[in-house]
Amino acid sequence: MTRPLNQAWVLRHRPVGAIELSDLELQSRPVEALLPGQVLVRVIYLSLDPTNRIWMSDMDQYMPPVEIGEVMRGGTLGIVEESLNDDFAPGDYVMGTLGWQKYGIMDPRQGLAKLPVIPGLPLTAFMGVLGFIGATAYFGLLDICDPTPGETIVVSAAAGAVGSLVGQIGKIKGCRVIGIAGTDEKCTWITKDLGFDAAINYRRENVLDALRRHAPGGVDIYFENVGGDILDAVLTVLNVGSRISLCGLISSYNAMDPVPGPYMFRNLLMKRVMLKGFIVSDYIARFPEAIAALAQWMMAGQLKYRVDVVQGLEQAPVAVNKLFDGTNQGKLVVQVSGEK
Amino acid sequence: MTRPLNQAWVLRHRPVGAIELSDLELQSRPVEALLPGQVLVRVIYLSLDPTNRIWMSDMDQYMPPVEIGEVMRGGTLGIVEESLNDDFAPGDYVMGTLGWQKYGIMDPRQGLAKLPVIPGLPLTAFMGVLGFIGATAYFGLLDICDPTPGETIVVSAAAGAVGSLVGQIGKIKGCRVIGIAGTDEKCTWITKDLGFDAAINYRRENVLDALRRHAPGGVDIYFENVGGDILDAVLTVLNVGSRISLCGLISSYNAMDPVPGPYMFRNLLMKRVMLKGFIVSDYIARFPEAIAALAQWMMAGQLKYRVDVVQGLEQAPVAVNKLFDGTNQGKLVVQVSGEK
Repeated sequence: MTRPLNQAWVLRHRPVGAIELSDLELQSRPVEALLPGQVLVRVIYLSLDPTNRIWMSDMDQYMPPVEIGEVMRGGTLGIVEESLNDDFAPGDYVMGTLGWQKYGIMDPRQGLAKLPVIPGLPLTAFMGVLGFIGATAYFGLLDICDPTPGETIVVSAAAGAVGSLVGQIGKIKGCRVIGIAGTDEKCTWITKDLGFDAAINYRRENVLDALRRHAPGGVDIYFENVGGDILDAVLTVLNVGSRISLCGLISSYNAMDPVPGPYMFRNLLMKRVMLKGFIVSDYIARFPEAIAALAQWMMAGQLKYRVDVVQGLEQAPVAVNKLFDGTNQGKLVVQVSGEK
Repeated sequence: MTRPLNQAWVLRHRPVGAIELSDLELQSRPVEALLPGQVLVRVIYLSLDPTNRIWMSDMDQYMPPVEIGEVMRGGTLGIVEESLNDDFAPGDYVMGTLGWQKYGIMDPRQGLAKLPVIPGLPLTAFMGVLGFIGATAYFGLLDICDPTPGETIVVSAAAGAVGSLVGQIGKIKGCRVIGIAGTDEKCTWITKDLGFDAAINYRRENVLDALRRHAPGGVDIYFENVGGDILDAVLTVLNVGSRISLCGLISSYNAMDPVPGPYMFRNLLMKRVMLKGFIVSDYIARFPEAIAALAQWMMAGQLKYRVDVVQGLEQAPVAVNKLFDGTNQGKLVVQVSGEK
């Protein structure tokens, strides 16, 4: 039997500024034979995330950077096509970090999870609400910030995959939620469709002025995805005893020069703020708790989400930049092959 | 009976940069008559602290700023000379925020604490180890950072009133302690007399290089009094899961232009750091716990401290700048009158 041909994006250069197509190279190679215990997975969906840009750089980070010449790292959802592992059979849907390629081979003990088949639930839900994205929103808001009803939450990148869930979970918990996003369409979506109390378009409004208008009593919780000027504006209106969940700093990931921290850093002292950086994989042992709650809210119609599907693995290096120019609408994924 | 003459430093201008003598004015005025419930206190020691500079500015801060024309705010230790309060008698030693003056009148319910008389214990101990300074070190290190034996602690302004106690408490808790200070004399004091494992003279050494040498396994806890370049250096060598107690940012208090936050701010995310700003008065209800522990350690000879006594209330506006140029040695106080 002929082995299928794999296609894989390999990192050629570390990007300087935005990711360029020439930083990666699409290589074709035959799929290797399986070793005992391994499975062959055909990738259906590839997750594109801001942290991809961090992995491409060689800065000191939370995982080893992707090395030059390696297949680009990425979260994937796929289907098992061959198995030398008793726990996995052809046709099983799985999630794992197989990378930017059509086929991946892995021993499931390295981190491959079998997905339940839930009638009526689209597979892409596992790339968003019921996956890492949902767990990020859940633990980042509830575990780190411990919101109580009536508190005011601000979330940046509020129409993004994580931010849109954070705001909806905040509403479920009885809080007032203000979202910051970059287009009027996004602002309308989060207020009209998702139930946020207010939205600020940072490209058209002075964020500090708008925060003072929408949160005259100050801000108790900030879920941070962005950094930069937006972080400074929120720091300015924090209440005493407020909490910041530091999930991302996307505004700086493409920076070519050192980026200073916020000018209002001193307010972390003056307002006795608790700030905690986190990576969702720190919570991996508690994922079932998050997924159970998120699934329940989703079934009850309390959580809406959007998936932005780009067709074709060859589009990945261009599509990933949608995260940085804000043109994606919801969770950004690349469809690499058919669902069946 | 003639009322005694009071002398009081009144804020005239908000300082621009360092505090100038002309920013304050020493006014003489008769001591007013007491109202029912009030006591008249003769100030013996006036505490000079970095936060005095914050109170003189009109930035958004943790207490209202001192208004122009008001007596400068300051922590004091004194003796009751007259009392219209049943709980306080002439001769009682008391602590409270009576300000930069020779005599203060206060209703004790506004915050005046009677001091125990402990034979052999100098009064100045209450300005340091057994007062706000000791509580700051105690709660800032133990409550916020929860050190476990074997962890590596870094403290800045390590020969200062708070920093020198933080390091010694860290040693009592079985940690490795590295202090950062500004003179060789201070570095020798904290290592030879106080038992710190290492000291870095930030005026003579590259702090980042020195940290890498003294903490090859990285830093788990940082007690921050300073900010600026030193904060950036420590952020660079933080371990995953480390904690920062944000107690002060003295390097920026005299700044005339906006001060950017640390360039390595992103490491709060990458290393999943917990940072918490605090003001010791947040812990006022738990002070007895701190004072009991600190007194026990002091009696056991495990806590040493220095008091830098400047003679005469008229010296206060000049002496306070010793905190900013680093020429003080230990807790800085002004002796305003005799102990008896």
